[in-house]
Amino acid sequence: MEAELDELVQALRCLPGVGAKSARRMALHLLERDREGARRLSRAVDEAVARIGHCSVCRTLTSAETCSRCADPERDSRVVCVVESPGDVLAIESATDFGGRFHVLLGRLSPLDGIGPEELGLDRLEARLQAEGVEELILATNTSVEGEVTAHYLAEMAARHGIRTTRIAQGIPSGGELEYIDAGTLAHALSGRREY
Amino acid sequence: MEAELDELVQALRCLPGVGAKSARRMALHLLERDREGARRLSRAVDEAVARIGHCSVCRTLTSAETCSRCADPERDSRVVCVVESPGDVLAIESATDFGGRFHVLLGRLSPLDGIGPEELGLDRLEARLQAEGVEELILATNTSVEGEVTAHYLAEMAARHGIRTTRIAQGIPSGGELEYIDAGTLAHALSGRREY
Repeated sequence: MEAELDELVQALRCLPGVGAKSARRMALHLLERDREGARRLSRAVDEAVARIGHCSVCRTLTSAETCSRCADPERDSRVVCVVESPGDVLAIESATDFGGRFHVLLGRLSPLDGIGPEELGLDRLEARLQAEGVEELILATNTSVEGEVTAHYLAEMAARHGIRTTRIAQGIPSGGELEYIDAGTLAHALSGRREY
Repeated sequence: MEAELDELVQALRCLPGVGAKSARRMALHLLERDREGARRLSRAVDEAVARIGHCSVCRTLTSAETCSRCADPERDSRVVCVVESPGDVLAIESATDFGGRFHVLLGRLSPLDGIGPEELGLDRLEARLQAEGVEELILATNTSVEGEVTAHYLAEMAARHGIRTTRIAQGIPSGGELEYIDAGTLAHALSGRREY
């Protein structure tokens, strides 16, 4: 294969979910059918990599010093929702009308991988809790083992500051059928039942 | 969402098989976990778009005037394999030990879409047939309706020059089960049976 084509195929494989065959298909598509799209992609990647960093307040991805959400005075700074990644912020923003603030951990506590409170910069979150008059900390880490451990740690931290914590609900997903749901989820759904 | 991030997500959607969700996942992956890979991708796209054009002989993708296959004196120029796209060349090269020449149509005859012999540059293939002492033309267009029509047209063209034509075999794919094969394929497999 041509060196430039080969390099393009290899470079495309850094994208998540793209293997050798998809990368080849993508490379040929760009070169045969969408060179304008290819140029736009290259520019967009350059721009994004050069400009996008982390918000100095909540640590989500942004090209400014503080992200648009942290800079927005309309948002309720008494409620802070803690998530693991910038993608979680986008997911919550597009699915809900949550109007509070966010804090992005950029990871989760995972002692086996050497990720402790310092690596997650939890001192910055603690400083926010003290400085911003937070009244409720929503723990929206994933429901994986590490996510639960992280939520537990954050709850203890908030308790030391007398701040109320809530955890996103665990249960049957919308449209789910009980018969096919795993045992752990079903147990959570039953123990977490609410008045109807 | 940040403008640069939004633009990156939109730009990624030009890739085949990438929808809104995958594009967002890819953009976040590049920015959060693989900025070096992102830079490499951008460079590779730029290089490929700037340098790769079509071979002046066989029309496959190449960064040179003639591709490495057409420039290789070891290849048998008496056998020319006609395919629809550069991807087909790569597929045949990686799956077989074919040692002849290629000719890439960059499409197929499709009168309804206004694609006739001129649009496919079939005069260039005809010139090759006359000039290069071709003895066998392998018709390796797809087995779709348009691919068959194209193969038929090419066979007539080759016949005018007294050149033998062969068509790639149609039948049951390797590992296929007769019970689940479509009727057209099964009919082809039976009518195309060979001595065992």
